[in-house]
Amino acid sequence: MTTPHDSTGPKDGAAVLSTGTTVITNIGTLVTNDPSLGEGLLGLIQDAAVVIDGDRIVWAGASSQAPTTDNRIDAGGRAVIPGFVDSHSHLVFTGDRTEEFSARMSGRSYSAGGIRTTVAATRAASDDVLHDNVDRYVHEALRQGTTTIEIKSGYGLTVEDEARSVAIAASHTDEVTFLGAHVVAPEFADDPAAYVDLVTGPMLDACAPHARWVDVFCEKGAFDGDQARAVLTAGAARGLLPRVHANQLTHGPGVQLAVELGAASADHCTHLTDADVDALAQGNTVATLLPGAEFSTRAPWPDARRLLDAGATVALSTDCNPGSSFTSSMPFCIALAVREMGMTPDEALWSATAGGARALRRADVGRLAPGARADLALLDAPSHVHLAYRPGVPLVAAVWRAGRRLLGSA
Amino acid sequence: MTTPHDSTGPKDGAAVLSTGTTVITNIGTLVTNDPSLGEGLLGLIQDAAVVIDGDRIVWAGASSQAPTTDNRIDAGGRAVIPGFVDSHSHLVFTGDRTEEFSARMSGRSYSAGGIRTTVAATRAASDDVLHDNVDRYVHEALRQGTTTIEIKSGYGLTVEDEARSVAIAASHTDEVTFLGAHVVAPEFADDPAAYVDLVTGPMLDACAPHARWVDVFCEKGAFDGDQARAVLTAGAARGLLPRVHANQLTHGPGVQLAVELGAASADHCTHLTDADVDALAQGNTVATLLPGAEFSTRAPWPDARRLLDAGATVALSTDCNPGSSFTSSMPFCIALAVREMGMTPDEALWSATAGGARALRRADVGRLAPGARADLALLDAPSHVHLAYRPGVPLVAAVWRAGRRLLGSA
Repeated sequence: MTTPHDSTGPKDGAAVLSTGTTVITNIGTLVTNDPSLGEGLLGLIQDAAVVIDGDRIVWAGASSQAPTTDNRIDAGGRAVIPGFVDSHSHLVFTGDRTEEFSARMSGRSYSAGGIRTTVAATRAASDDVLHDNVDRYVHEALRQGTTTIEIKSGYGLTVEDEARSVAIAASHTDEVTFLGAHVVAPEFADDPAAYVDLVTGPMLDACAPHARWVDVFCEKGAFDGDQARAVLTAGAARGLLPRVHANQLTHGPGVQLAVELGAASADHCTHLTDADVDALAQGNTVATLLPGAEFSTRAPWPDARRLLDAGATVALSTDCNPGSSFTSSMPFCIALAVREMGMTPDEALWSATAGGARALRRADVGRLAPGARADLALLDAPSHVHLAYRPGVPLVAAVWRAGRRLLGSA
Repeated sequence: MTTPHDSTGPKDGAAVLSTGTTVITNIGTLVTNDPSLGEGLLGLIQDAAVVIDGDRIVWAGASSQAPTTDNRIDAGGRAVIPGFVDSHSHLVFTGDRTEEFSARMSGRSYSAGGIRTTVAATRAASDDVLHDNVDRYVHEALRQGTTTIEIKSGYGLTVEDEARSVAIAASHTDEVTFLGAHVVAPEFADDPAAYVDLVTGPMLDACAPHARWVDVFCEKGAFDGDQARAVLTAGAARGLLPRVHANQLTHGPGVQLAVELGAASADHCTHLTDADVDALAQGNTVATLLPGAEFSTRAPWPDARRLLDAGATVALSTDCNPGSSFTSSMPFCIALAVREMGMTPDEALWSATAGGARALRRADVGRLAPGARADLALLDAPSHVHLAYRPGVPLVAAVWRAGRRLLGSA
């Protein structure tokens, strides 16, 4: 049995792999995100094949050189891409805010409570309801090609409800973020400092065992720079890695704080000074852009081009939540990034896969090279460019995660 | 057997319908598009039911009053809407223009032939290839809830290739449009008048038997007002009803010509003078807006609000074609119309269903009232507003056309 772990393939004719191994051949365009395997930023291979063994990719290269196996899937000239890595979502909630959305889009005022509406509904919901909600949206995302998803708490805002939220998230993904510092809980409206003490004390104690990340909404009306620093450093002291909601609605200290603290990601980045851009370009923090939020709130678009030209690393994510961005569609975010944010189709695809992986400090996802987890999507299209070229069209025909085909027929 | 043909339902308890009749109950929100049946523009009924008998809707009303049948489908609180009526598409083609799209979006110049690329590929294709292409995109649209679709010729531009195009379109839809006057055929670049003579003579003779509509691209670089008038009047003399590609790229005579000739629709309407808006408001011509084209060419958005406030009838369609708008997604067009064109979610849904029906002069589709064709979509959402609120997400769970469930499980 030969299971080559490099990309060159068998030198002298096709080898036979074990029956547990699957080859997908006749791939029109394969996106590997490994420039050593193919052309350009995306490491593109035309007329390609990939071999899956167990939960891993073990080979990627030209179809003509692919090893022979008992399990063979013909992609029919269609494209295969790494599964999307959605590094920013808020799925532990219940209820929706249809009326608020309708009013905002229709220019009508609406006196409902915004995020407080979702907090109240989430607190009142049973565990089962919250589990079902997460499960529903994780599967909805999976059908659209998302194989890794980060999930935040942040609609509980009590020790008990935040602990429940991260525990529920942890049963659906490895990438759980404690976001007790989403907004000041309504009970602490008159004493935000006491809420920060709660978040950095008992709430953190209760949540840290279930989470990998700590996040804070650093924004006027939420948490200022000092408060954000307190939340992130307290989280780091408990072993949680920092990420920051930064510079979404206004200029502010969030981005520079994120870079200073070595956060994996500064998310939103809609309002950036030159100093913010320089910090992101020089530092080790990914700029995660969330165009679904700008779409659904009619806000100005983040300038991905400016960040890329400065040398920053850019990720794209959905920000899926019922208030400001109720999309689970990474293809939709790609189409917006290309239309509105100055990204090329190749850059947008990279940011939605490899970029998301960088924002989660993951080396095993977001690419299709030997050793990577076998997370991939087969598109009803000859190339990944169709994700932007064919906006709104559900193009994901089949999805594999960790080597298992979960959806679709090829 | 009771098959009530009014909306009031059985007065004294539930009647039993024949086993050929299906009731869909427990509909969270039913969009009827009949204000006499429910609330507002959309004739909304909460907690509703519809009854299908054969290919028709025979009853719509409150779930509690629905007649009992052997076939009962529980919508589980989800929304049911009329199937989308996409009144503007160009599906008889082959090939794609991925490179052209990528170059346009990346700011690179690209010397390919634009529409001529598609004309050459279409002429060179076999009938089977063209049939398969139409079939593919009609089904792709159907999966997204489109149950009526208009299809234009316009990539043949010879007598033989246009006749073949309309004949192929006619085997997939009743709404076939002869668009020999899409652009001047390359062979006639030096003598556009001769091409108009061809279109209004032998080409029309060959195409009229297969088509219901005649269309012309009235625009600088394509056909001027006099040429457009010649094409439309010649078509009308052969029994074809007029519709016009008007005012897409610049101001021009298209809209006013359309209204003067009583065209069913003036399509695009991106650049309108006050006189154009007045003409549409006063006349019997629908303004069909195609935001997919503006999205994919980074053009300014048509101003739906201005048209609606003036009293014009507005339809939304995809313009599905490989050059300027390669989307088949009516939900995507709705989301854009709400975000970018000043439409409320209700108005956008109406325009994508009843508006499209008006643009095709059809009374049997675009609504779910007794007597209408049973074309409907079940959404994975409690209300139609989610089509805009959840952009990019494939929300269509099941589709019925002419009473037959074609897709999905309820």
